[in-house]
Amino acid sequence: MSAAAAAPRAADLVRWEDADRTARPERLARLRARMVAEGVDAYFGVRPEHMRYLTGFRLDDGEEKVAGHSGQFLVAAEDLVVLADSRYTIKAARQASAARVEPIASDLAVAWSSLVASVGARRIAVEAGFVSYALWERLASAAPDVELVAASGWIERDRVVKEPAELERVAAACGVADRALDSLLPAIRPGVTERELAWQLEVLIRRPGSGAEALAFDVAALFGPEAALPHGAPGDRPIAPGSVLLFDFGAQVAGYRSDMTRTLFVGEPSARDLAVYETVARAQAAAVAVLESVVRGERPVPTGREIDAVARGVIEADGRWAAYGHGLGHGIGLATHEAPSLGRSAASDAPLPSPTVFSVEPGIYLDGEMGVRIEDLVLFDAGGDGRPGRLEQLTNFPRGVLIVG
Amino acid sequence: MSAAAAAPRAADLVRWEDADRTARPERLARLRARMVAEGVDAYFGVRPEHMRYLTGFRLDDGEEKVAGHSGQFLVAAEDLVVLADSRYTIKAARQASAARVEPIASDLAVAWSSLVASVGARRIAVEAGFVSYALWERLASAAPDVELVAASGWIERDRVVKEPAELERVAAACGVADRALDSLLPAIRPGVTERELAWQLEVLIRRPGSGAEALAFDVAALFGPEAALPHGAPGDRPIAPGSVLLFDFGAQVAGYRSDMTRTLFVGEPSARDLAVYETVARAQAAAVAVLESVVRGERPVPTGREIDAVARGVIEADGRWAAYGHGLGHGIGLATHEAPSLGRSAASDAPLPSPTVFSVEPGIYLDGEMGVRIEDLVLFDAGGDGRPGRLEQLTNFPRGVLIVG
Repeated sequence: MSAAAAAPRAADLVRWEDADRTARPERLARLRARMVAEGVDAYFGVRPEHMRYLTGFRLDDGEEKVAGHSGQFLVAAEDLVVLADSRYTIKAARQASAARVEPIASDLAVAWSSLVASVGARRIAVEAGFVSYALWERLASAAPDVELVAASGWIERDRVVKEPAELERVAAACGVADRALDSLLPAIRPGVTERELAWQLEVLIRRPGSGAEALAFDVAALFGPEAALPHGAPGDRPIAPGSVLLFDFGAQVAGYRSDMTRTLFVGEPSARDLAVYETVARAQAAAVAVLESVVRGERPVPTGREIDAVARGVIEADGRWAAYGHGLGHGIGLATHEAPSLGRSAASDAPLPSPTVFSVEPGIYLDGEMGVRIEDLVLFDAGGDGRPGRLEQLTNFPRGVLIVG
Repeated sequence: MSAAAAAPRAADLVRWEDADRTARPERLARLRARMVAEGVDAYFGVRPEHMRYLTGFRLDDGEEKVAGHSGQFLVAAEDLVVLADSRYTIKAARQASAARVEPIASDLAVAWSSLVASVGARRIAVEAGFVSYALWERLASAAPDVELVAASGWIERDRVVKEPAELERVAAACGVADRALDSLLPAIRPGVTERELAWQLEVLIRRPGSGAEALAFDVAALFGPEAALPHGAPGDRPIAPGSVLLFDFGAQVAGYRSDMTRTLFVGEPSARDLAVYETVARAQAAAVAVLESVVRGERPVPTGREIDAVARGVIEADGRWAAYGHGLGHGIGLATHEAPSLGRSAASDAPLPSPTVFSVEPGIYLDGEMGVRIEDLVLFDAGGDGRPGRLEQLTNFPRGVLIVG
């Protein structure tokens, strides 16, 4: 295996926490500039990624459902307020140390009018894609003289550009995932089931000392025809020689995620299956080669749609199999899927930002037979502002044909 | 350890799936009766628990964020429609076999007008607490002649009353959790950290052969003063003799959850800590004794608030420490927290339904020092309709003082 980022140590965790604390005033300043431009005097946020990014308050994936309004926040020109019910006030004061922690009961509407008055807000941007219709209506009724404005993508757009300590954490999460898959290889043999392999890979990622605090998402381990389902779940199917075995998985380190896919062969592959694999690998390599020429300054910065078209074009030019129906890739950070988007959707029409990190994951899926996807994360920086251009593969597990079992 | 429900076998899983399939027409009939009573001709549902309960479509906890509209459903007088994008159509057809699977792109608003026309709907109940404001507005604009009506608690109210195959699964999940904690005991010794114990308990619940498919929620393992935080997270604090160690955890079996808390003593407890424990245990026993007298027909069916008051009253009458700030308990099933509610909130003013299952979890929390909570699940059936009254503790791990380490 090539050199991967080392497992994070306690000192790294402290350093990253310090870096976040130092960066938060600038992150808030960017949001406040947007608020001025949009003519609102406050921003009400509810996404867990935004809580952490702007305030420091952290919710685990499983905790979101029970946390109520705890961690939700209000940004005004001078104020940063984090809500917390009685279960979360101690945690909020510890983690969101630069904020005023406002105790809140289960019904936010009761406190809304005095809360928004306390920051002098009359026109408030609200994360309308994440606040329920019922809550929006209750807040609107609770303070009829305060206007609510639907906001979408304001903080998401800022999070696309990654700080050095954010990139380090994505790289560290990739390192954990690389090592875990490498350690899993001896366990892959005919008779073992998808579910057992998914479980063992999860244990390798999460066991104490691995450096990861969580999975980025549930491990997919899919054998044979199941690998043709881009969102299949591991089952009790035992694996057997003669087909593909696809792993799609990621780790989380200090809040930041990784995401990778490898498609292995159990026993000797057929000529057809090898050809599918090689076509996908060529598609991925073509996209990466274009990105490399961009960071060398030989091409202008492309849009996500253009990079998708490079990989898709390789498969279509080959002509034997249909190209992937999904997009070529997605940004990653505090969320597993975030901007930038690389695909055929309207979201992919902007030039790639810098520095950022995203997946490059072409695939070919033969319904009912087999599927191949190869997914890596790349750090992309077109350079400028005194920075040299830079392209770095953060996932280092070998990408070539690998026969196991 | 007392007798707990055995680990589920493959035949149990098949039987439960059959029972769900048989029960779904009645579940849908109850919803349709409510629709008639409320004057709507369709119901648009988005909660994953409701998808599974009414249609059979299943989403894992981690999958909800990426599933888009897949699994969301529309019930009309004659129709049951399940949405699925290209990633989920095969799964939806397999699992929601009684539904019409409607392929859907990422923007539901584009398809909304023809979708609602296809079932002849003009007035649609929508799960307003779970549909975002942005989506609601897009749907309202996409079909301006179709009225959207905010609905809350319609299906939740039906799910309170549990079918036999639902109760069996909650009991089976309790059995997995009982056995896991029993197996963990030898690992509890001074020097081990909260995080290591939480991880080992998770492995015992989820390892292949345990019978559980997932955790019900992240394991809490909290030592000493941390046990006073009702929503603390395990840290790298090593445990040491002389304080409490609180575990709050649950398993999931075929979609149904368990939830239990045990507070153990590491080394010999102080007289004060023992007295706290015994007060909590007396509070719990008093609530259970009242429920037992109810199922014997000696008392009318109480409200959740009344049962909460019984346990709370024991701690208040003792007078040495403040009673728990949370409620005494909550229903459980496809969700870890659901109705009925046992507490001081308005939701607790209805008499307990039958048959149902809920937690009984009084606690005493001494800020900065220690906390004790004892939580069990009980199956409660006041009887009637030919059924005898029945009260059964589904969690069987011993509730007495237990000294470990």
